[in-house]
Amino acid sequence: MMEKQYFQFDGLILENGTFFGPVTLAYETLGTLNDDRSNAILICHALTGDSHVAGTEDGGKKGWWDIMVGPGKAVDTDRYFVICSNILGGCMGSTGPSSIDPATGDPYGLTFPVVTIHDMVAAQKRLVDHLGITRLHSVIGGSLGGMQVLSWCYHFPDMVRSAVVLASTLRHSALAIAFNEVARQAIVSDPEWNKGHYYGTSFPATGLSVARMIGHITYLSDESMRQKFGRKLQDKEDFSFDFDTDFQVESYLRYQGAKFVERFDANSLLYITKAADYFDLSKYLDYDEVLMKLKDAAVKFLVVSYTSDWLYPTYQSREIVKVLKRNSLDVSFCEIEADCGHDAFLLPSDRLASMLSGFLSGVGPAGERRHP
Amino acid sequence: MMEKQYFQFDGLILENGTFFGPVTLAYETLGTLNDDRSNAILICHALTGDSHVAGTEDGGKKGWWDIMVGPGKAVDTDRYFVICSNILGGCMGSTGPSSIDPATGDPYGLTFPVVTIHDMVAAQKRLVDHLGITRLHSVIGGSLGGMQVLSWCYHFPDMVRSAVVLASTLRHSALAIAFNEVARQAIVSDPEWNKGHYYGTSFPATGLSVARMIGHITYLSDESMRQKFGRKLQDKEDFSFDFDTDFQVESYLRYQGAKFVERFDANSLLYITKAADYFDLSKYLDYDEVLMKLKDAAVKFLVVSYTSDWLYPTYQSREIVKVLKRNSLDVSFCEIEADCGHDAFLLPSDRLASMLSGFLSGVGPAGERRHP
Repeated sequence: MMEKQYFQFDGLILENGTFFGPVTLAYETLGTLNDDRSNAILICHALTGDSHVAGTEDGGKKGWWDIMVGPGKAVDTDRYFVICSNILGGCMGSTGPSSIDPATGDPYGLTFPVVTIHDMVAAQKRLVDHLGITRLHSVIGGSLGGMQVLSWCYHFPDMVRSAVVLASTLRHSALAIAFNEVARQAIVSDPEWNKGHYYGTSFPATGLSVARMIGHITYLSDESMRQKFGRKLQDKEDFSFDFDTDFQVESYLRYQGAKFVERFDANSLLYITKAADYFDLSKYLDYDEVLMKLKDAAVKFLVVSYTSDWLYPTYQSREIVKVLKRNSLDVSFCEIEADCGHDAFLLPSDRLASMLSGFLSGVGPAGERRHP
Repeated sequence: MMEKQYFQFDGLILENGTFFGPVTLAYETLGTLNDDRSNAILICHALTGDSHVAGTEDGGKKGWWDIMVGPGKAVDTDRYFVICSNILGGCMGSTGPSSIDPATGDPYGLTFPVVTIHDMVAAQKRLVDHLGITRLHSVIGGSLGGMQVLSWCYHFPDMVRSAVVLASTLRHSALAIAFNEVARQAIVSDPEWNKGHYYGTSFPATGLSVARMIGHITYLSDESMRQKFGRKLQDKEDFSFDFDTDFQVESYLRYQGAKFVERFDANSLLYITKAADYFDLSKYLDYDEVLMKLKDAAVKFLVVSYTSDWLYPTYQSREIVKVLKRNSLDVSFCEIEADCGHDAFLLPSDRLASMLSGFLSGVGPAGERRHP
């Protein structure tokens, strides 16, 4: 079941009011759906992730959250049926700006509509429907994945039994928007970008590489960069006194930029960062109706932040917790001590693993409260 | 005395071991040098500053630290003779990569040598010699200016009576290097950069603009960006659902990028960021000899950091203080509560003004201890 599968549907009405279709979602599943279809867990990937969440692909590539997902792991695929799909707007098999527009026979490029987190989730919902699942045991995600989790709870409260939000936020901050905007400017400033019409002719590799370098800095922390690189030089005894790479941290960033260019589409990065910037659930979450539904359905929440995450700092997770608690929802919150910055949620953590596994076990059957 | 002046000298042996010259330094002075030439204060500017530290230029442009420097101000030009020179490698009148190489008649471009903070300071020292000053009442600077202050103390301890280091560091951190490297990559990725040979033919405006946007984010803080911009939209009621500017923070950054391109040379930004990255006084400061000299000369230090500065966080100022205190030097330290990030040292602050003025008044005459 670890092969990439594709689900195609006619399309959907987007948050911008227009209809868009057809849509293909690439997805992978692990584990077995039980008879009453009550053991499904949807995992939502972050900015540049894909559907390959766990297990080993043909090429030997491990999934991006293989440390947490698998037989006997925190998200135990012996117990749960795990689904992960590439987001709408992505470039890892799902419909995005690099896909062929059937109306023209050419890639969409910038004619692809600006999609939102809700649009991504609305597409996932169609996949979940297609799989015959009416309620998810849990929806789990970190960073942009966490925004999708919150959007799921807001838009489809009846379909969620529990939600895990890691290193994320109710709304994208000015600082986070600023970094995304600079990344986008790096891409669109590259002449090879050619207003998004580069498929088959060129590729804005330098712009995309700079964008990735910017992103990468925000995923680390001052502390982790000091520990990992400090002022260590790269393959030399002394400064070069030129503009070659002197420091290991420079070499590391250039490598990350170059590697990213091989696997990711520049336009997809524009669209996905824009979706993140548009994300602001805080303007909706006061809607009593949704919160009442979440409460009635006894949806349980786990919110996790990391001490050194300065992209989505702990105070932003506390905001989520505050809104939920104010409405008497069942929410656990943990700030994990970690030096490694925002990326912490992707790294091995016994603390997160035991918390996650305990939380998932504590989620009762559909509609039933564990702690009445 | 507020007009820009120029001092030219034959040249100097750089830290890379080669001789470079001739060198011109653009500088401005305020106030009057007293008869025994003991009231001179050198102010060192930051990354993109210039010699116009205070007062009003012909065009009406106020100096970059006019809030702190002038008659009756914290650095009182009725009492002190203030000198500020554009750094070596800069583009505001001092010799830098955009200057004409007399050997070829063309701009240096990348044939300009990679200079260090020490080289900048060694050039300033020649200017101070030229002005007939043997000991400076104080050397003051923030950020890259603070590095120059520390370099002054290290290399010319006999010439400094006191030193003020604001929002700076003993050594450039991996995080700070990372941001500089991405800024440099943004510039060199711009085809208009043309390996530095663009003078008179083109200009890497888009690359330089992206570099400035990156820099600008690091000068602010999450808190100040939330207060200043939050998620406010720019001249619109709702999202544009395209890649135009949606948020005020985007518009602000694009404006800062565009404005910077009009006044700054792209190659100078490469050279100056490299000098910052190379800065690491921590590997020298244990040298007992220098510290002994500073102690014998009763040099007084004032070190100031800002709570929300994440580019040169407080712990880095504490490192400076620790080294000085460990060697029984006279050092005052203050962490100022400020929301506005690294840029705080350039903004009005009664706290800094009174501290600075008190500190400068407390500096005794040449070679004499105030608190024996």
